[in-house]
Amino acid sequence: MSKPETDDSEDTLPPLSRHAVRVFGERGVAPEGELRDDTLAAEVPVALVFNGVSHAVMMATPQDMDAFALGFALSEGILDTAADCRGIDVRTVDASEAGLPAGMPGIEVQLEISTRSFERLKDRRRSLAGRTGCGVCGVESFAGLDLSPQPVPRRDWIERIDLPTVLHAFAGMPPRQVFNAEAGAIHAAAWATVDGELTDLMEDVGRHNALDKLIGSLARANRLQEPGFVLMSSRGSHELVRKCARVGIAAMATISAPTAMGVRMAELCGLRFWGLCRAPRGVLYADGRSHGS
Amino acid sequence: MSKPETDDSEDTLPPLSRHAVRVFGERGVAPEGELRDDTLAAEVPVALVFNGVSHAVMMATPQDMDAFALGFALSEGILDTAADCRGIDVRTVDASEAGLPAGMPGIEVQLEISTRSFERLKDRRRSLAGRTGCGVCGVESFAGLDLSPQPVPRRDWIERIDLPTVLHAFAGMPPRQVFNAEAGAIHAAAWATVDGELTDLMEDVGRHNALDKLIGSLARANRLQEPGFVLMSSRGSHELVRKCARVGIAAMATISAPTAMGVRMAELCGLRFWGLCRAPRGVLYADGRSHGS
Repeated sequence: MSKPETDDSEDTLPPLSRHAVRVFGERGVAPEGELRDDTLAAEVPVALVFNGVSHAVMMATPQDMDAFALGFALSEGILDTAADCRGIDVRTVDASEAGLPAGMPGIEVQLEISTRSFERLKDRRRSLAGRTGCGVCGVESFAGLDLSPQPVPRRDWIERIDLPTVLHAFAGMPPRQVFNAEAGAIHAAAWATVDGELTDLMEDVGRHNALDKLIGSLARANRLQEPGFVLMSSRGSHELVRKCARVGIAAMATISAPTAMGVRMAELCGLRFWGLCRAPRGVLYADGRSHGS
Repeated sequence: MSKPETDDSEDTLPPLSRHAVRVFGERGVAPEGELRDDTLAAEVPVALVFNGVSHAVMMATPQDMDAFALGFALSEGILDTAADCRGIDVRTVDASEAGLPAGMPGIEVQLEISTRSFERLKDRRRSLAGRTGCGVCGVESFAGLDLSPQPVPRRDWIERIDLPTVLHAFAGMPPRQVFNAEAGAIHAAAWATVDGELTDLMEDVGRHNALDKLIGSLARANRLQEPGFVLMSSRGSHELVRKCARVGIAAMATISAPTAMGVRMAELCGLRFWGLCRAPRGVLYADGRSHGS
């Protein structure tokens, strides 16, 4: 790694791509099977490499890759703070170089992280390898699955995240979901103040990726501790709850329903959790005032 | 493994669970913040163990676990045919035994597979381990990412999967999505004949899991080669296309939009691919008549 600072010359792969498709069922508007140019969400393999060691590959929308990498490292507990990341380098990898099918390039994100974080990451990987059946890791057994809840600090403003605040914030999302408006099938993670003012929004085909991009972007600006909450265009799964809790975010609201494990995780973490937020209605699944047993 | 045959005494964890929630925004119908009993989708860690070696843990809805395990093994190329699976044993694992947080049990599915399949799985895992930076695996580098397309056999009935057929089949889905009707946030994968008659439907919080359950169920009944197509309640990602292609399914239709990689994969596999199927409209993203370059 030669670059000590964040490299802004990223995003060389487009987040959207165009395809010729045939549209049916628009009788009276267009001929059956009319050939049309359609916009689709791009989804490319992104390899995250920490201090030269490849850690994970995820399918993601190739936009805001440095925020994604930083957010992932924080929300997965690889880094404690953004300061543990010394540099991020994003580069496009040709399909042939990555061993991917023709026409499918990938992205490699190199993160240079503090010695302390890197040693801990190596320890974690070693311990995982030792606990599984055949000497290799990944989450391949219960032992590799870390579901321990991380309690969030109590916030004296938490009850201000009420239904009107949440719905006001959700109303601000669609105009900022620019990729989704063009291509569909793209999730959004957003941040709003305790007054429900939407300040940030990130998009990705993957909801976890969108949240990681948001977390990375807030962390970079040292704004993770600001009073406010996360909004998700998706349902509320336990991974989203855990990612928020890991970085100290105390409240989340989702458009769709949560899973039972999402609610249980919110209770265990003491995270305030709204779901099914569709005006004029919303459901409070966990109030964030008490930590579960 | 003592059980040579499929164990039907599974599903000891419920697919849905009940939680006390507070409902807001139903003015005139119910008091603000009324406490109500709500039904949520369960989502539990499921460990897949092949011939005693733990391979993967996925979060899934604890229903149809044997179909899920068989479908996963087939769609991920671990088994070539259902006959390679000699037995499936499903058991619930207490939270304490699995090392999970209190109140969060898991499921372990033990599959006994043919020596040939198991040797190949071990080889694949060894080769992955050797190719990565630190001697451990999981999809942690491009080398571990298998995106090679698997061409599907050409079917002379493929053009019968037209828009009316697809929409007719989709119309049959909601009445059979019984878990989703109760809890929301649950995907469905279904099978329909070339005449658009819906014959099978499986539900799961994860769309890949729902498809694996469907594939396993069809494979068990030796029906994977029947003329017909898959319907998904989700968007169309490349993983879904690949899972279908791996088991020889020649056509798929999704309610939401596909990603660019999903379309590219369908072209490479020669899979007929409908998306955005919302009556009266639908979009043909790949016609399944030709294999892409």
